[in-house]
Amino acid sequence: MPEAATAPFPPRAVIGDSEFDRDTAVTRREPGVYDIDLSAGWTIIRAVNGGYLLAVLGRALADTLPHADPFSVSAHYLTASRPGPAVIRTETVRTGRTLSTGQASLFQYDDEGNEVERIRVLASYGDLATLPDDVRTTATPPPIPPMDQCFGPEDGPAPVDGSSAIADRLMLKLDPATLGWALGTPSGKGEMRAWLGLADGRDADPLSLLLAVDALPPTAFELGLKGWVPTVELTVHVRHRPAPGPLRVSITTRNLAGGFLEEDAEVWDSEDRLVAQSRQLARVRLS
Amino acid sequence: MPEAATAPFPPRAVIGDSEFDRDTAVTRREPGVYDIDLSAGWTIIRAVNGGYLLAVLGRALADTLPHADPFSVSAHYLTASRPGPAVIRTETVRTGRTLSTGQASLFQYDDEGNEVERIRVLASYGDLATLPDDVRTTATPPPIPPMDQCFGPEDGPAPVDGSSAIADRLMLKLDPATLGWALGTPSGKGEMRAWLGLADGRDADPLSLLLAVDALPPTAFELGLKGWVPTVELTVHVRHRPAPGPLRVSITTRNLAGGFLEEDAEVWDSEDRLVAQSRQLARVRLS
Repeated sequence: MPEAATAPFPPRAVIGDSEFDRDTAVTRREPGVYDIDLSAGWTIIRAVNGGYLLAVLGRALADTLPHADPFSVSAHYLTASRPGPAVIRTETVRTGRTLSTGQASLFQYDDEGNEVERIRVLASYGDLATLPDDVRTTATPPPIPPMDQCFGPEDGPAPVDGSSAIADRLMLKLDPATLGWALGTPSGKGEMRAWLGLADGRDADPLSLLLAVDALPPTAFELGLKGWVPTVELTVHVRHRPAPGPLRVSITTRNLAGGFLEEDAEVWDSEDRLVAQSRQLARVRLS
Repeated sequence: MPEAATAPFPPRAVIGDSEFDRDTAVTRREPGVYDIDLSAGWTIIRAVNGGYLLAVLGRALADTLPHADPFSVSAHYLTASRPGPAVIRTETVRTGRTLSTGQASLFQYDDEGNEVERIRVLASYGDLATLPDDVRTTATPPPIPPMDQCFGPEDGPAPVDGSSAIADRLMLKLDPATLGWALGTPSGKGEMRAWLGLADGRDADPLSLLLAVDALPPTAFELGLKGWVPTVELTVHVRHRPAPGPLRVSITTRNLAGGFLEEDAEVWDSEDRLVAQSRQLARVRLS
């Protein structure tokens, strides 16, 4: 038996000690000012993934604010971030007993040495563990086939041209019903569904949900559009602390008009709870 | 024939000369600083309506930024606004060719004379008239019966205790299917639908859409909950300039959990176009 087949699985990474935690770690330079080296590991083509950026800003705000969990995070994307050094400046807007509100901006230097703002965030934080346990919901988990009937980047040729380093960081298994774009036959429906986890096995937490809502291929691909779909604005609501195990993510676009579309994401945990909702406004190039 | 019956209808107000325009008008004190007297005419019980506040901030940003139309506006509500004087401070975050981004905060003085921030907004503005005319949509207008089969506050006893001055400013006709709460028999479904206009006949424009997304009774009423449902965060996407005529607004709540719920609003114009989408995170008191 070849040695590789007998080697044990690598140990699963845990929350606090994983690729995601290391790559989103911020260093407090002084109160409200944080340094980070944006990892090239979370890029799509050459752009840093917007969900990864949101998690980075979310971590800085969790340090600044008296509450640790993002409840509602609204981000406006100003210019495209690049891998490399960045500075985050946060501000405490208001602190309350159950909710506190903060603001954060991420800056980088451009080629001319000018500081450029990449993304600005307004966010309200709370403590998910203190919420009452009531749930009244009509929402149902997305109809995704079992994971072994879904497909990831490792199951075929890379569907997106260029380097997508983020694919190596994620466990992504797309519902075959929303995979037509990768085979040249997009469904024409604005839907994308997948099982999602982190490649090193780290379970989800409220912070990684900020990544999860923007980690799937854009619904525009299934609408037959190609190319970059830059986010203008993205708002996430974290509704519950996710249980261990893979997430299911469903993204829906109902209205493409005037070169803009919305992407509505739902994230469900392994206990069939709706743990996050998001909506983004994005631009498309009409071909 | 009594004289009242022969009196002509009052002339319809027009965009730029109406209650809404007068009550949202801001006065530029200096670049980026605006004064306004928040009108008591847009209150529910004693609180100033969140959509009216959004329109006020939207008007200040339209003056500050090089683009006039709100494309995406994210508001975090910090403390409850009161009728009376307020100051708005705006900041230009980024200006681009097709989109510019700004920030605005509204402040009032509390009883002790301290300046208190009421609401903070991040927003991206553009020019709706320059967008291409393409529409690819699977969204369909909400199933609201004809207006003469719907009901407004004038058709029955006031369903909400206390003074709701905003009811006099709006033309609001609720779908009977979402009116159970007013009769003591809430449907248990998180839905609210209505025809909506301004009482003086002023047509909708992109700015008044910011009011429209937060003008209906809360879906929580149809879920059997009573009382105040304060907004934590509200984001609006304006997708198209509305045609003249009444709007149809549909609000849906799918998930109430941990004392929070989302309200998703869609606004449709008289030409069956989806002109705005919004989502808010709100708190409920569970009884």
